[in-house]
Formats: sequence, structure tokens, C-alpha cells
Amino acid sequence: MIMIGRLNHVAIAVPDLEAASAQYRSALGAKVGAPQDEPDHGVTVVFIELPNTKIELLYPLGENSPIQGFLDKNPSGGIHHVCYEVEDIIAARDHLKSTGARVLGTGEPKIGAHGKPVLFLHPKDFNGCLVELEQV
Amino acid sequence: MIMIGRLNHVAIAVPDLEAASAQYRSALGAKVGAPQDEPDHGVTVVFIELPNTKIELLYPLGENSPIQGFLDKNPSGGIHHVCYEVEDIIAARDHLKSTGARVLGTGEPKIGAHGKPVLFLHPKDFNGCLVELEQV
Repeated sequence: MIMIGRLNHVAIAVPDLEAASAQYRSALGAKVGAPQDEPDHGVTVVFIELPNTKIELLYPLGENSPIQGFLDKNPSGGIHHVCYEVEDIIAARDHLKSTGARVLGTGEPKIGAHGKPVLFLHPKDFNGCLVELEQV
Repeated sequence: MIMIGRLNHVAIAVPDLEAASAQYRSALGAKVGAPQDEPDHGVTVVFIELPNTKIELLYPLGENSPIQGFLDKNPSGGIHHVCYEVEDIIAARDHLKSTGARVLGTGEPKIGAHGKPVLFLHPKDFNGCLVELEQV
């Protein structure tokens, strides 16, 4: 039995990272960080710190970014995934696989934007919602 | 100047509320509440309590549910909106309107699932992301 913990972040793919950052900073009054390139994930990210969790703005980086196809289908952008924290990502993965859920990619954790192991689960197995698990 | 506060919840529209609730309870080990009908909003909701925020599972209720069209387009379900807390929803609305953002519906707050005033902002004005504001 695993138990998901905190909602680490909600990720929103955006067509214009600078405009989206400015909107969250000025129109919504949020605390907006600096852009960080994540070449291993093919994204540039901006984290918005809310009092209880984060919003992750995602923008394509380099060729074959996993975000590009999403933006092609959703030119205005859109909510891309949610990230739940887990204590033991391997135990969580194996338990979820035993329930029939599919893990994306190689099935092995990669190191995510916070330097922690992450995995993505198939949206079709989670109500059309792409789920990232992050070990904390 | 407004400032958004906590992420109150992330809403996920689901094609089978019982199956989605069971999955969050059993496969993900989360604390899942009982279904609540919200006839004024055309939805039945199930809240999932995470340590820092909530996931709101949404299922259509009655005729003309705003969720039905979303499920017709996304038969597996999908992430539907995010809800940010604000202190003064009228001040927040007026400020956001002054930045060019459109408010959905009549433009006046309705009472949401928590008995608090809520408003929805046009997704096209927020990176394709439907944003709910809730006064707390």
C-alpha cells in the first residue's frame, strides 16, 4: 500500500513563458521564479510559489520537447500534469503497476526539476490526467 | 493589486466517479470523501484530501452540466481547472478585468462547493487553463 503525499505542483504548458510569468507576477500578484532550462526533460520551467504548493509553467526546450506536441494541440496552452509526492518511488511504481497502471518511458525514474527521482504515469489510466510521482 | 493565495484545489473531470474514487483510495492510498451533489453547478463532486490541498473529482449532474461537454471531448476525463484562493473576490475580479481578463457567466460570484463565493476566468486569458477564484 502506498500513500500519495503533498501535491508538489500543477504544471501548465504555456505558449509564451515571459508573458505567462508576467501575468502571474503582475495580474495575479504571485511570487514567480526565474526560468530554468531542463535539457534532460526538453523544457524550460518557471516555478510560481503559492503558500501551499507550486505552479510549474512549462515551455518547450530543444528538439523533440514533450511539450511541443501538447502546444500544437492546445495553442493557448493548458494544464499539463499534476505531481504527487511519494516516499518511495520504486515501491509506489511497483504497487501501481500491480493495479494495472502503466508507467511512461523506460519505467525507470529520471531526475526531475528539483533534483529528485520522478516518474510519469499513463493519463489513460488516471482519468485522462497525466500524473507525475516525485520521491521526496 | 491582488495576490492569489493557496491553491484551494485541482479539479479533474472523470467518466466514472465511483471508479476514480476507488482508485484514489486504494491504488494511491489517499483520503477520499463522499460524493456531494452540487445542483447549482451541475456537478457531483468528490474531494480528495492531500496534506496541503485537495483534488476535486467532477462528474456531470443533471441536464446541461458544464462537465458533460468536457467529457464528450475528453472521454477518459482530464484536468478541468485550478482554484486559487483570494481574500476579496470582487477586488480580484475588478483588478483582473482591468488587465483584460474575461470573467465567465454573469460576471457575478456564485456560491461554490465550499459555501464560499467563486468566479471562473476565461481559459483563453490564462494559458488555456480554466481558473476558479474562491474567496476565503
